[in-house]
Order: sequence, then structure tokens, then C-alpha cells
Amino acid sequence: MQDAVTDAGNNVRALKAEKKDKAEIDAAIAKLKELKLELDTEIKAAMAAGDEAAAAKEQFRSKMNGALEQRLFYIPSFKIYGGVAGLYDYGPPGCAVKSNLQAFWRQHFVLNEAMLEVECPSVTPEVVLKASGHVEKFTDLMVNDVVTKDCFRADHLVEENLERMLADPMISADKRRELEDMLARLEEFTPEEMGDAITKLAIKAPETKNDLTAPYPFNLMFPTQIGPSGALQGYLRPETAQGIFVNFRDLLYYNGGKLPFAAAQIGQSFRNEIAPRAGLLRVREFTQAEIEHFVHPEQKDHSRFAEVADVMLSLFSRDAQLGAVKKPFPMTIGEAVEKGIVANQTLGYFIARTQTFLEKIGVNPERLRFRQHLQHEMAHYAEDCWDAEIECSYGWIECVGLADRSAFDLKAHSDKSKVELTAYERFAEPKMVETLVVEPNKKDMGKAFKKDAKAVTDALMALCQEDALALAAKVEADGKAELKIEGGSVEILPGMVKIAMETQKVSGRNFTPSVIEPSFGIGRIMYCMFEHSFYIRPEDEQKTVFRFSPIIAPIKCTIFPLVNDAGMNDLAGTISRVLATEGISSKLDTTAVSVGKRYARTDELGVPFAVTVDHRSLQDNTVTIRERDSCDQVRVAVDDVLPLIKKLCNLQATWEEATAGLEKQAAASD
Amino acid sequence: MQDAVTDAGNNVRALKAEKKDKAEIDAAIAKLKELKLELDTEIKAAMAAGDEAAAAKEQFRSKMNGALEQRLFYIPSFKIYGGVAGLYDYGPPGCAVKSNLQAFWRQHFVLNEAMLEVECPSVTPEVVLKASGHVEKFTDLMVNDVVTKDCFRADHLVEENLERMLADPMISADKRRELEDMLARLEEFTPEEMGDAITKLAIKAPETKNDLTAPYPFNLMFPTQIGPSGALQGYLRPETAQGIFVNFRDLLYYNGGKLPFAAAQIGQSFRNEIAPRAGLLRVREFTQAEIEHFVHPEQKDHSRFAEVADVMLSLFSRDAQLGAVKKPFPMTIGEAVEKGIVANQTLGYFIARTQTFLEKIGVNPERLRFRQHLQHEMAHYAEDCWDAEIECSYGWIECVGLADRSAFDLKAHSDKSKVELTAYERFAEPKMVETLVVEPNKKDMGKAFKKDAKAVTDALMALCQEDALALAAKVEADGKAELKIEGGSVEILPGMVKIAMETQKVSGRNFTPSVIEPSFGIGRIMYCMFEHSFYIRPEDEQKTVFRFSPIIAPIKCTIFPLVNDAGMNDLAGTISRVLATEGISSKLDTTAVSVGKRYARTDELGVPFAVTVDHRSLQDNTVTIRERDSCDQVRVAVDDVLPLIKKLCNLQATWEEATAGLEKQAAASD
Repeated sequence: MQDAVTDAGNNVRALKAEKKDKAEIDAAIAKLKELKLELDTEIKAAMAAGDEAAAAKEQFRSKMNGALEQRLFYIPSFKIYGGVAGLYDYGPPGCAVKSNLQAFWRQHFVLNEAMLEVECPSVTPEVVLKASGHVEKFTDLMVNDVVTKDCFRADHLVEENLERMLADPMISADKRRELEDMLARLEEFTPEEMGDAITKLAIKAPETKNDLTAPYPFNLMFPTQIGPSGALQGYLRPETAQGIFVNFRDLLYYNGGKLPFAAAQIGQSFRNEIAPRAGLLRVREFTQAEIEHFVHPEQKDHSRFAEVADVMLSLFSRDAQLGAVKKPFPMTIGEAVEKGIVANQTLGYFIARTQTFLEKIGVNPERLRFRQHLQHEMAHYAEDCWDAEIECSYGWIECVGLADRSAFDLKAHSDKSKVELTAYERFAEPKMVETLVVEPNKKDMGKAFKKDAKAVTDALMALCQEDALALAAKVEADGKAELKIEGGSVEILPGMVKIAMETQKVSGRNFTPSVIEPSFGIGRIMYCMFEHSFYIRPEDEQKTVFRFSPIIAPIKCTIFPLVNDAGMNDLAGTISRVLATEGISSKLDTTAVSVGKRYARTDELGVPFAVTVDHRSLQDNTVTIRERDSCDQVRVAVDDVLPLIKKLCNLQATWEEATAGLEKQAAASD
Repeated sequence: MQDAVTDAGNNVRALKAEKKDKAEIDAAIAKLKELKLELDTEIKAAMAAGDEAAAAKEQFRSKMNGALEQRLFYIPSFKIYGGVAGLYDYGPPGCAVKSNLQAFWRQHFVLNEAMLEVECPSVTPEVVLKASGHVEKFTDLMVNDVVTKDCFRADHLVEENLERMLADPMISADKRRELEDMLARLEEFTPEEMGDAITKLAIKAPETKNDLTAPYPFNLMFPTQIGPSGALQGYLRPETAQGIFVNFRDLLYYNGGKLPFAAAQIGQSFRNEIAPRAGLLRVREFTQAEIEHFVHPEQKDHSRFAEVADVMLSLFSRDAQLGAVKKPFPMTIGEAVEKGIVANQTLGYFIARTQTFLEKIGVNPERLRFRQHLQHEMAHYAEDCWDAEIECSYGWIECVGLADRSAFDLKAHSDKSKVELTAYERFAEPKMVETLVVEPNKKDMGKAFKKDAKAVTDALMALCQEDALALAAKVEADGKAELKIEGGSVEILPGMVKIAMETQKVSGRNFTPSVIEPSFGIGRIMYCMFEHSFYIRPEDEQKTVFRFSPIIAPIKCTIFPLVNDAGMNDLAGTISRVLATEGISSKLDTTAVSVGKRYARTDELGVPFAVTVDHRSLQDNTVTIRERDSCDQVRVAVDDVLPLIKKLCNLQATWEEATAGLEKQAAASD
């Protein structure tokens, strides 16, 4: 429609330029006016629809958050002191859901693939985070209100301004392109570029409208000091991954020196966000579950890839993002790897396993996609990166990052620590290799350099091939050569060191493994899962339900005596204890309120099954079991309760399968 | 013997004073010399025996730590960078043991008693820790070397010096008493007293022998800043308890307003120790599991006390510590509560449950005692405190603290936050109560104080009975009275407020609950459990074993094909998968080494059971199962493996019970 208006406008201008007769021009103008009116109506309708959709999302979110807070899934931390932005507690059901989610993650990844799990501290000395690059680069650009000194994230301010300007349908196509381009590149702006954008868009402090300072990088790590002297700078870890990398050598040894192997860690990470927003999605302390899968850089096939090759994914590849349609497409991971869309089998294997994991815990697969990083989003060393993005009321949210990080991390820690972090591979056949040989003459060294002899030897051994040969040539030519050592330099004279290229038979080599890193944000996954699980019963606005998978539900089963009767209470207690023997958590509800109210209460917590002990139970030793979402009820013998619930909770059968042939019960008591 | 020497010496002096004849005196002197010689020999023998015992302990510990580090139960954190004192990683088996220990804790306490579990952040704003007293009081006394500025814990230096002096058998009884008294009171020394002790004992810096600064308090919390402005001071939490206290109001509501109830939290805590020592026992980051059981202050009986009344404990009560024998005594918790040795049933209930918990995870009950805090060790508000102490090579180690903390914590947070943290109780009969009534006259207030009206009203309502009546009296006497309000003061005139005592019918009251707090140090318990589980097979110095309980063992079962044979490998794989269906972790070991070596390898990890698939397995579908500690083997049908292992792992039967009647197998293959 925008194009039609532009065409009509051009047409009028052309007719005028060609000095066509007035009737023709007037007709063209009338046509243009008509089109403009249509466009205007269309825009207004789209905006109204957009507003309505946004309002519906807001309302959904506010209903759900109400239900979550009411039942203490979450509590703003330190609430009696007014809370702290970006910090949340998990109350009892939230804690149980999180614990179930983590246990299932451990089962699905760690146990299923015999990964090596580790647990490392949050307090981390600076040297580790210098090596990883976090001290230098883990920053957001910040600006201050020049008067109040209030802090803002520069990209947020620019983004909001750009979005507001782009919402205006009357801006020119050129302007639109320019703003859209700015919006797309925002995340990579240098402080200078961000400053230019602020100046160009004339952005002021949001409330005071004061001027802003120039943008400057703010490090997002929480700083601390280790020990009493204040001499050892530390940080709270911004991710759990580094704890695995620094242990690579020990873990490889534990694994018998063999590759590939994976290590995993579940634990807290910390990011001192400038301005936490988006509620539970952007927090300052959160649980990560990270896997580091170490592989030979040239052998990235995966032995169990065939098991997942048929898993269907929604892939939003780089090409799809940059192409005309800008939509993800369905494809099996087998095809995606074969076509080179996903870089290799191991990365593909974890993408597919992530899809299965998220589906099993209750993420709606229609609102899940894997988005490939654009070239400029990836670090220079990364081979390929995909994010599992889940759609929720805040939009598409990155919940899992899956990256082939090549050898970057191990090399960085090896360089900094001077500890070799490599694996060894034996060649199929020994090879004859031209190798640099550096052999210091120990006696001469000791005589010439005394206590510095070790430093000189170290410096010689550390020379790369080019430098070593240059040194040897200089000694031969000039009779001496200068060598830099730790804290100074020394003179190398003839005879002190033998430096030469020699042909040697070598049977293997050390190499730095590549690492493929699936990294899960537990809190974000949990939040999106809550959104996908929440609904309101059509018959009653007040009846909220979470359709949690039985593996995730905080409690698996509630047990009600129909009325307050000693016999019924006893039987209910017995059933609860029998379930407990197999680790199935249940909750006895003996309050005297109506069964309908009690069902509503368990629905609010997402409890999948409810056992009711009624008058008939005392006669024939049967009870009813109700399924949460269908509200179906069946009658079963007391002895069959445990096997039935267990089968349902282990996902070995659906409700329909498990209850086929059982006596259906009218939901009279509901 | 010391007494005999003293007596003999006195005797000699008496004889001399009485000027007895020389022969008699000489005989007495000879006797004295003889006794002194005997004492000397005795002391030397005792010291040698002591040294030997100490050396044996050292050797045991070094063997065990070697085994732990070799198999990556622990790894010094950031090892490739030289490590950081007081920070340790858990490697794969350590992680699994810890995870099992926590899961069992959750089952034994949280699930068994339907406690409300929460999870709160580690990053905590200062206001919370000011209320709890940690900002002011969570300190150790520190001294510095005046030249090098090195930091030392003052109490450690004084303690070491005192112990060295006390080791000298020749010091006088008076001196000994003085030093022992100092040692006993050391922990409560003020900075001045500690400084006096350092001066008196002439203590210098340990290595340099330089002078030391005066002792000063060093706060053990890790400091950090929350948010970008640096304006919000924060700390890493020194304990998990505060997260529960600040949520009391919501948790009480969640529990339907009913007392008693308990909340629990498992999570990381942080203490920036001045000089971490004692290896894994004193670390800077550790996992705590804490329970806060809220009760009516006058109703501390426990509904399930009868279940534990017969649990036998080793109690080291205050009287036993201060009496002559200084030894713990055995007693049931029922008797201890009845006799008033333990203050109340609820505290007693948790002491007994702690005993059961520790025994089940493998702590040797003969090396476990409950030591009551002496009066001066307890905070002024505490009603009664007991520590579960476990003996290990470092001595008796406090692993669990059990304290009746009265209403202190809730009151402290209520005072600081101005949020009422109370429960409500309905009286059996409504009571007529003389009550202070304060009724500000809204209209007058608004007219007189405008925008300050609310602050004035708040100030009036906050007056205690005494102040309110005094104010009323002053207004009546002087026609006006000054009232302090937030940020200033105002004048109260007659008619502005009604203040009077009135008799009202009240049907209940709000009160601050007491809290009983069992607090578990997971890492310390785990370390002591390791010591109690470790042994070396008598027949081979190299064969180390951990006799882990099946509920704690990192892996429950190893599965070996006797030789590398496809049929055996298949069957082993099938058994492993069958065990996995019931969540029993197993490890397939198909390495070609001897079965004996493979058994040794599983012993080092403390795996309780090993299934071997042998030639006969392929004929009659039976396998052997070996028990780790007895090395007994039985032969069972493949189909019986799962039920047998499951029963053993759930502690539903001992090995002897479970295998009675099964075919014993000679350990030929071992």
C-alpha cells in the first residue's frame, strides 16, 4: 500500500511535469488522495490491532504474574526493605519447579551422556577473568544525567527513541532505512558511535530532560576483594563456564586422556545490570547450566548423531534472517547439518537435544526457534552459534546459547597461566617432521647467568621458530645477540645454546581441542515455560491453571478426603505414604472446603493429578483420580494408584493411554 | 604423678623447715628425685605417644586427601593459576556425593516435614545485614606485621603461643591455670584484651619476628556494590538464614497463617576468612542447609516428638563440660528434654533428627556428640544452643548448629524494616484489656500541618504507651507539647488528638514467634563423612576404599563384562539401562584390565556394588554381584539384579538380609 501511494505520487508529479491536461491530473490526484486515505485507515487499523495485541499480552502477563506471586512461585527479594531491582527469591512451589527442572536437565544431559559434572565457586580471582576477556570486554555502554548523575544504558535510550521514530508512518523511506540500520547495528556501537547517535537523535535524560554525558563502558561484573589485605581483586563469576576451562587438564586426565568428553556445571552466575527490566528475564543473579564439550578440531562428528537426525526444528538461519522473507523454516537437524546450515554434527546434536529437552519440560514447540548468529554477532574465533529463542509476552527471548567456540577459551587460559591445556593424538603412522630444536648448554648458562639461568633458559625455550632461527643467525654473524628475559635482557654468546632445524620421527602431537558450548539460562527457560503453561478456565475468570508437565510440577498429586471423616483421612494418609516410597511428592488437603475449591487450589499450583477418597472408597477400596487439564476422572482400586501415577509421572503413558478401560467418573463433586 | 612430685617436694621442704635429721631429709630428697625421674619418663612417653598419634592422624589424612584429589573428589579452585586459599572445586565424584547428600537432606527434613523451601540470592543489600547484626559484629580480630603489613588472625597467634607454653610440663600450676583460662576465653576477647594478651605473651609476627599492630576487627563478609552508581552497598550473604527471616510474612500467609511451620534453604554462603587453614574445613565459599522452625514462644512441644524420644545421643552438656569429668554421656533425647538438659521438645526433636541424618549418611556415631554452648558462648537472646560435633583428624569439628534463638531475628528485621513480623493467636475466651487509644483528629491535623499531617499522625501512632500518656498530660498541663516527627518537630495543641487508656474486649493478639534454627555446613559434614568412610585394605597398602552408604555413593553400581566379548558387553549394557529406568546410576567398565584392578578402581570411588557378566552369564542368564566392604559375591538371575540393587540402595535391607539363600560365589576372579 505504501508503494502504491508512492507510485501514485510519482504519477501525479510526472503528469504535472509533462503538463498533461487538468482532467487527467485531477483524476490522478483524486486517485492519490483515495490511496492515501486507504493507507491511513490501514495504518490506524494496524496500530489499533497492534495496541490490542500488546494490551492482551500485558493483561495475560499481569494475570500470570499475579498467579505466580500469589502462590509464592516468586517473591521480590528483600521485599520488606523495598526490594532490590533484578533480585528475586523462589518461594516453595517455585523452588520445587526449579529443582525438578534442574534434576531433569541433569538426567537429560549429564547422566544420559556420562558428562563430568563439577562445582566451582562464584568468587573468582581477577586473573581468570582477565584471561577470559571479561575484565576488558564484559561491559555495557552507560550514560549519566549530567545533573542528577542517574545512570542509563545508552543502547536502551537510543533503541527507545529509534522505535518511537519508526512508529511514525509518515517518515520517508530513506529516513526509515537509516533508522532501521542504526537499530540493527546498535549492539556493536563503539562508545563514539553511540555518542554520535545520542547527539544526532538529540536524546535527553528520560524524566528530567537534562543533557547526558558521553557514553562509557561499565563492567557488568560484581567486584569484591578476596582476603583481608584487599590485595587480591575478585569478581562474582559472570558465567559458570570458566570453572570448567581452568579444570580442563584434570578432567581430561580423569577421562583417561580421551576425547571427546563433556563437562557440565549448574550454578549461580552474577551480572550487575545497569537497569534491570523485563521482570524475571533480566536479573542480577541467576542459575546457569553449562556444558563444555571438548572435541578434536577436525573431528566434530558425533557418535550418537543418528539418534537425533530426525528431530524437526524451526531454524532461523543467517540466510533466512537476511533474505526477503525473514522467517524461520522447518527442517530436520540431519538435513541442516548435511546442507551445511549447521556447522557440524556435534553442534547439531546439542541443538536437537535442546529441542527435545525444552519440549519435554513444557515449552510449546510452535513458539520455539533456533536463530543463528549473524556474522557480526559472533566473536572472531567462533565457528557457528545458534540461540534457542522462546516466544513469550516480551517477544522472542534467548534462553539457550549453543556455540562452537573453537579453541579460544583453552588457548586464552593456557597463554595466561603458562600451563599447557592440550590433548595428545597418536598419528596412524609415525611421521618424519622438520622440527626446531633448542638445547641450552646448562653449564655455560649457569656460569654466565647464575640465578637468572632459569629465566634465560625459559626465554630461549619460549622462542617461536622464526625468532629462534633469527637469534642463532645473529649469534653466528655478530658473535652475540640480545635476548629479552623476564625483567630485562641478556647477551647470548656462541656455544651457549644449540638452535637448529632437525628432522625427527614423531608418533603424535599435542593439540588444543575445540569446545562446543550449550549454555542454559534456567530462570529464563522457567519463566517462558510458565507463560506457555498458564491458562484461565473458560467457565471462570478466577480459575487459573498451570499445565505443568508431571516431571516439572512442584507436587505430583494432591489427595483429598471428600469430607472430614476419620476413615477417609486414614486412607488418604496411607496413599500419600505409599506414593512417598517411590519419591512421588503429594499433598494431603484435609481442609473442610468444597472439593471444587480444593481442585482450584491444586490447579493454581499446576498439580497434575488429584486423588479423592469418598464414601465408596470405604466400601470397595477404590478412589477417583482426576486429571488437571481435561478434568476427567476415573475410578481405580487403591492398589493401582501408585503404578498408575508413577507411569504418568515418568511420561511412560499419556492420561488417555493409562486410563483406557477404567471406569469414568462423572465430575459431580467438582 | 605431677601431684606425687609436688607432695614429695613439699615433704622435703617441710622436713628441712622442721630441721629433721639429714638421713631422713636425704631419703626424702632421693624419693623426690626418683619421682621426678619417673614423671620425666612418663611425660616423654606421653609426648612420644602423642606425637605418634598425631603422626598417625597426619598420615591418615594425607593418604585420604591423596585418594580424594587423585579421583577428583576435590580440586583446589583455579589450580592452574596457583589457586586461591579457601576455595575448592568439587570434581565429578565429589559433585555426585554432594548432590546425593543434599537430596537426602531435602528428603529427611524438607519433604518429611513439609517444610517450605525457598531460594534467595547471595547478593544482599547492606540494610538486611545491618538489621541482623552482621555489619557490626561479624568480625575476627586481625593484626598486621608492622613492616610487611601481612595479616594474621590475632586469636590464632595467641592460641598457638598458649598451646606451645602449655605443652611445657615444667610450668607451675598457677601459670598453667592462668594460661588455660586465657585459652578458654580467647574467642570473646575484646580488641583491648587481645592486645594485652599479645603484649603479655610477647608475640611477634610468625616468620619475620617483627612487631604486630594492635588488634582490630575485620569484617568477614565479602563486600560488593549493587548497580552502576556504587550507591547501594551490598555483601555476599554470610549465611542463608536471613533470606528466610525477611520472607516470614509471606511464608506465614502461604501456610494459612498457622504456626508452627518451618522454612528451609540450601545454598551458598560466603566468609572472607583472614587466613583459611584446616584444608577443606575452613573455606571462603560453602554450602549451607538451614531450617528456621517458627513456633509460639510458649508452645515449644513438638507433635512428632514421640517418634524420636528413644533416639540415643552422646550429650556434652554445659554441666558435663564444666564438671570434673569433662566427658559427654549417653542419654535418650526423651530423657534429656524431661530433665531439662535440652530446653524444649522442638529443639530436642531436631537434635534427634540430626543424629539420625548423620548416622544414615555414614557418620560414625561413636565419633559424634552434641555439645551445649556455655553461657558465655551464647548470644544474650538465645535460649539454648547445641552443636553437633564430629571427630576427625583435626579434632572435634562443629558441623551442625542447633539453636533456640527466641524472637531475636524477626524482631530485628521488624524494627529495621518497620514491617510487622508477627503471628496472630485467638484467645480461648475474649479478654477485657486496658489498652492505649490514640485517635488523631484528621480535620485539625490537615488544617494545622498540611502536607506534614501524615508524618504527624504516624509519629503519634508510633508512640509507646508511656510517651503517649506523657504527651497527653503535657498538652493538658501546658496547653501544648512538642512532638518529634521525621525530619523535625511540631507542636500538638488540645483537641488535635485523643489519647487515653480504655478497656476493650479483645479476642486475640499479635506476637512475635520464636525460631529454632538447625544449620548444617554441608562441606564440613561431607569432609568428616569422608574421613569416617576411608580405609585401606589390610592386604594391600595401595588399595584404598570409601565405605560410602549406598544413598551417598557417587555411583551405585559398576558393571563389568569379564572379558571383552560382544555378548557380555551387550548384557552389561542392558543391565545398565534397566538400572537407569529406576534412577540407579551405574558405570560400565569395559576396559580390558583385570577384574581385580577394576574392583580396586570402583573401591576408590566408594561404589558399593559391582555386577560382573561372565561366561556362565551367557549360558544361564545369571551374573555375580559383589559387595564392596566384605568383598562377598553372590550369583543372581539377571532379572533379579534390579530389585536386589534397588532394595540395597534404598536401605530396605542389609547385604546379609538381601542375599540370604543366594548362591555364594568364590572371589576367584578378584
